[in-house]
Amino acid sequence: MKILECVPNFSEGRRPEVIEAIVKPFRERKGCALLDYRADKDHNRMVVSLVGAPGPIQEALLGASKVAISHIDMERHQGGHPRVGAVDVIPFVPLRDMTMEECVELARGFGRRYHEDTGVPVYFYEEAAVRPERKGLEVIRKGQYEVLKVEIANPERHPDIGEPKLHPSAGATVIGARKALIAFNVNLGTTDVTVAKEIAKAVRSSSGGFWHVKGIGVALESRGLTQVSMNIVDYERNALYRVLELIRMEARKWGVPVVETEIYGMIPAAALLDSVSYYMQITSFDPDQVIELRLLGMLEDKES
Amino acid sequence: MKILECVPNFSEGRRPEVIEAIVKPFRERKGCALLDYRADKDHNRMVVSLVGAPGPIQEALLGASKVAISHIDMERHQGGHPRVGAVDVIPFVPLRDMTMEECVELARGFGRRYHEDTGVPVYFYEEAAVRPERKGLEVIRKGQYEVLKVEIANPERHPDIGEPKLHPSAGATVIGARKALIAFNVNLGTTDVTVAKEIAKAVRSSSGGFWHVKGIGVALESRGLTQVSMNIVDYERNALYRVLELIRMEARKWGVPVVETEIYGMIPAAALLDSVSYYMQITSFDPDQVIELRLLGMLEDKES
Repeated sequence: MKILECVPNFSEGRRPEVIEAIVKPFRERKGCALLDYRADKDHNRMVVSLVGAPGPIQEALLGASKVAISHIDMERHQGGHPRVGAVDVIPFVPLRDMTMEECVELARGFGRRYHEDTGVPVYFYEEAAVRPERKGLEVIRKGQYEVLKVEIANPERHPDIGEPKLHPSAGATVIGARKALIAFNVNLGTTDVTVAKEIAKAVRSSSGGFWHVKGIGVALESRGLTQVSMNIVDYERNALYRVLELIRMEARKWGVPVVETEIYGMIPAAALLDSVSYYMQITSFDPDQVIELRLLGMLEDKES
Repeated sequence: MKILECVPNFSEGRRPEVIEAIVKPFRERKGCALLDYRADKDHNRMVVSLVGAPGPIQEALLGASKVAISHIDMERHQGGHPRVGAVDVIPFVPLRDMTMEECVELARGFGRRYHEDTGVPVYFYEEAAVRPERKGLEVIRKGQYEVLKVEIANPERHPDIGEPKLHPSAGATVIGARKALIAFNVNLGTTDVTVAKEIAKAVRSSSGGFWHVKGIGVALESRGLTQVSMNIVDYERNALYRVLELIRMEARKWGVPVVETEIYGMIPAAALLDSVSYYMQITSFDPDQVIELRLLGMLEDKES
């Protein structure tokens, strides 16, 4: 059965009744599982985590989006996180029995339907980008709602779907397809944040490290530790074990121990199986040998 | 939702039509998933792997057992594997939301019902043993069908349920509860089987190694390797990583490399998460962070 993850971001993090109304369609739609939703008051933004089948996920997204659009007025919205619309970003992530190509097609098809149903203009990003320069979300979101409202009239900022003007209250929505992100933190036994910063430089792509790794060094003051805080943007190409071993190697230079690591949020089973297979030298392992994964496949078959 | 594994062994490994008739109830019963079944002609025996909810698993077992009893005549059965009955052994393994105590209760309740429905006498083994000396399957199966047929009349070999005589064609059945077994092999880069045998001695309980590990050293002649072939009887107490690291340590004494490892058959996700957390120093990891495990929990909730 085709399964995808979807992590829609809504520009509402303060009104509990609106938050609950937005997530209601995710709770109720069969075939769509609400994994998590986190509303942040400072950001005035909510991040939702869903998994499910393509059909139910899209139906639930349309339902939730209509609720968000009817309650959120971007003319009055304030918050610390960059945004261009009430329904700000919708990334689709292929998980099981789905290629990235299928996921891109789904994102584009959903974008058309979303625009027809709501009138909100749509931009496509990441793997679903139609204009190559729009791969990066930051390019589309430059200047946020307030600036885009004016600049959308310029051809280089026209939406990919819809007239070149924002929806009067809901702004615009950015829709895309991407791989699953893993938030991976490595905590170091030193209070010297320089060490974490230097190691972050060695590991992240922007300063010459692994291509699909983003990272910064931060202090964990209350714990007397420092942290290399990372996003692994493509765990299939930049395996967790390889990232960790590079960090252990660099830390030795400073005589600093790796004290512990953390996985924040969701992680696909494949990323962990990949690393355990490396450390334990397990060859020709089939994920279907894991009882729970086999059981999942069987329950999925019954559902479909 | 309560989920258990069950690995019934039937004394039929040669007649395809009988084999298929036995597994049919496992295929058809909703709530019971047939993971695997392997019939061995030399052993004239079939091992079935099931997972599912307690109710459906028991119903399917009764159905399959009646088919086996009607087709298998122990008076004429021959095969290389020790056995006492047409339905030889039924171990129940707690997997999710179930304690070993609940599993023991289930095994005993199933044993009573199985006897009422089939007239076959029942022995309880492992965690479900009623007589302490019957914890080991080999004690109950001593001398096999042919010897038990006579000795069952002796009080020390009376069944736990039923009159002290075998069923005229189906013999007896051994029912029990145990933890999930993991078959774990470590392949060594040497043709000298002495090394594998010595390392097996260091790691297995019978010669002073880990309490819940059984193991032997064997040659893999066609590959020019030798192997430490193990059963991890309790992976919660004897973690895979600890067993592997002991073998790596011992192998260094001989200057022999660990070339690869194999997991044969099914493994619970917890056993792999435990090892990956060790090697990667991941702290406070919740299995529900694994997308597939979370999804499984949600599909299970919908089923129940």
